[in-house]
Amino acid sequence: MSSNDAVNITGFASVPEFARGLVRDLRVRWALEEAGVAYQAKLLAQGEQKGPENLRVQPFGQVPAFGEGRIEMFETGAIVLHIGENCETLLPKDPAARARATSWVFAALNSVEPYLTQIAAIDIFHAGEAWTRERRPQVEASARERLGLLADWLGDRDYLEDEFTAGDLMMTTVLRILRHTTLVTERPLLAAYQARCEARPAFQRALAAQLADFAAND
Amino acid sequence: MSSNDAVNITGFASVPEFARGLVRDLRVRWALEEAGVAYQAKLLAQGEQKGPENLRVQPFGQVPAFGEGRIEMFETGAIVLHIGENCETLLPKDPAARARATSWVFAALNSVEPYLTQIAAIDIFHAGEAWTRERRPQVEASARERLGLLADWLGDRDYLEDEFTAGDLMMTTVLRILRHTTLVTERPLLAAYQARCEARPAFQRALAAQLADFAAND
Repeated sequence: MSSNDAVNITGFASVPEFARGLVRDLRVRWALEEAGVAYQAKLLAQGEQKGPENLRVQPFGQVPAFGEGRIEMFETGAIVLHIGENCETLLPKDPAARARATSWVFAALNSVEPYLTQIAAIDIFHAGEAWTRERRPQVEASARERLGLLADWLGDRDYLEDEFTAGDLMMTTVLRILRHTTLVTERPLLAAYQARCEARPAFQRALAAQLADFAAND
Repeated sequence: MSSNDAVNITGFASVPEFARGLVRDLRVRWALEEAGVAYQAKLLAQGEQKGPENLRVQPFGQVPAFGEGRIEMFETGAIVLHIGENCETLLPKDPAARARATSWVFAALNSVEPYLTQIAAIDIFHAGEAWTRERRPQVEASARERLGLLADWLGDRDYLEDEFTAGDLMMTTVLRILRHTTLVTERPLLAAYQARCEARPAFQRALAAQLADFAAND
């Protein structure tokens, strides 16, 4: 970070079990842990995210938002890139390597996540609705294609590029969306990749912090 | 751009009528036009995007990819941010304004586009399938909610923030996904916003260039 301004993020005080460890402030907490930056989390009650105060900092009524002095941001991809500007682990200084890391942050959010969230939407929010019987196999096939292309890219690499970057951080949190299925675990290569990234101490601290905030409000 | 390296992008030689003016290289062409950077487009035949040569530069078998000397990128969001590093119109130098522009690039791609593409997927690729009768109203309601929040944010602003940025570029190309519906045009505020951005000479040149490449290959 470029200053000594205190860093603030928003999260939820409580979410249902299925969402614990998935809420998107996890990504920002993880990036801040990689960068060694302390932060304060402001926890919103359910419903509060749609209120005028949160819409002022998060126009789509979600979490997280991010504040650091004059800097006010939303969208986890943007926030993680911002944190990465002063953390070479997340964004390498070499321009070519940095360009790759940035490409993978967007790939996780725009070329993989939308396919995986459609499965979660069916299984969690629309379970039992008639349309899902015909649609779910299509959605699963699309997700499998994306996961296959991702696995093909990885091959015998440990990470998406030579070293762990913000791209791996984002891709890992996206793969977690499928934890209620076997779509990732049935591919040993992807499962090992996800486990490798989740084994990072910074991830473990970030996850513990999110879960602790929920526990404190139970 | 940081050097005199030639800029190369990929696109398609031909696509069906419904996709003309929507294919994602339009975003990169637009950003390059805003930045005043010349480029060469390598046009792929349909099917070629899934072949090994393209997968090496675009791991998900899509277009566009972007090359500039040692820089090799994919994902339009990442490419537009890269171009913006040397174009203040796209990414303001002031860190707080830049953080807002970056937030909006991600918002367009991750908080708006996935809702709109589900409508296009039903209307174009799954038209007539039984499941869409129950599902389309849900998808339309979600898209309307997102568009409503976007319109609320815009209010009487001309752009998402004080000036046109890469965020507006990306949001405009996302709104275009709904051009076969009345979801944007029935909201005068959003329609005027889209028209304001599309009136930029750089957009007009980018659109003409994409359409001219298709025409040349018809």
